[in-house]
Amino acid sequence: MNEHFMKIALNLAKKSFKNNEIPVGCVLVDESNKIISSSSNSMIKNHDPTSHAEIVAIRKACKKLKTTKLLNFSIYTTLEPCKMCESVIINVGIKKIYFGAYSDAIKIHERKLRNYFYHYKNYEFLGGFYEKECSELIINALEKNR
Amino acid sequence: MNEHFMKIALNLAKKSFKNNEIPVGCVLVDESNKIISSSSNSMIKNHDPTSHAEIVAIRKACKKLKTTKLLNFSIYTTLEPCKMCESVIINVGIKKIYFGAYSDAIKIHERKLRNYFYHYKNYEFLGGFYEKECSELIINALEKNR
Repeated sequence: MNEHFMKIALNLAKKSFKNNEIPVGCVLVDESNKIISSSSNSMIKNHDPTSHAEIVAIRKACKKLKTTKLLNFSIYTTLEPCKMCESVIINVGIKKIYFGAYSDAIKIHERKLRNYFYHYKNYEFLGGFYEKECSELIINALEKNR
Repeated sequence: MNEHFMKIALNLAKKSFKNNEIPVGCVLVDESNKIISSSSNSMIKNHDPTSHAEIVAIRKACKKLKTTKLLNFSIYTTLEPCKMCESVIINVGIKKIYFGAYSDAIKIHERKLRNYFYHYKNYEFLGGFYEKECSELIINALEKNR
């Protein structure tokens, strides 16, 4: 886990907030800590229900490297991946998943700020990084579009 | 369920077999029984782990209709959707899912040909249409690439 990458993802999420997308940013890093791709959610602009930040970043990285596997990669995303994204992440072989807001971000006001992590199916699946900033972005976007 | 659409999906799968892709075809039909998009798996050609037939067809239909929802659509696919595809199918609101081969197609030799169906979470999720043809295509592709 490298906070630097999460901060980049957070900045991408902030940009996508301005573009009226669901503000989620994502960075994909290879084993030598090089950023291979980054993205933000572009569902609305692209009329594409699969254009979640994670999927866009994975598609970009695979295209760039001419592969369908991203073994030894880490993914940094500002929101806990949904089932679709989680499936793709697992399919491509990514085993290090770091996220900001928990997917029940809407409830953040009811919780204290937390930064704990948990393990999931032998993967390093850690959440809560910049959780407050990541989830407030999403809450604000939801309120803006109400 | 309209066998005509499954046959079109099967023909798309056959074409993708010739192109050395994983031979899965898919057709998306709106409520007036009009085909809005069709596709086959193009993971290998596109270096895109998300280019399963179902995802490609959904992306095409959404782009065409400038939407991220495909309510009242039916999806015909020659292989039981994987978790990623199933998530997207559910996310876009498709409730009628018809497939050919079961995802454990590799075991078809151990089973009798079957054409039963089952219900899943209130969705019409029916499998086994042209099961023999759909699954043999996949088995042959796996053997070819061994």
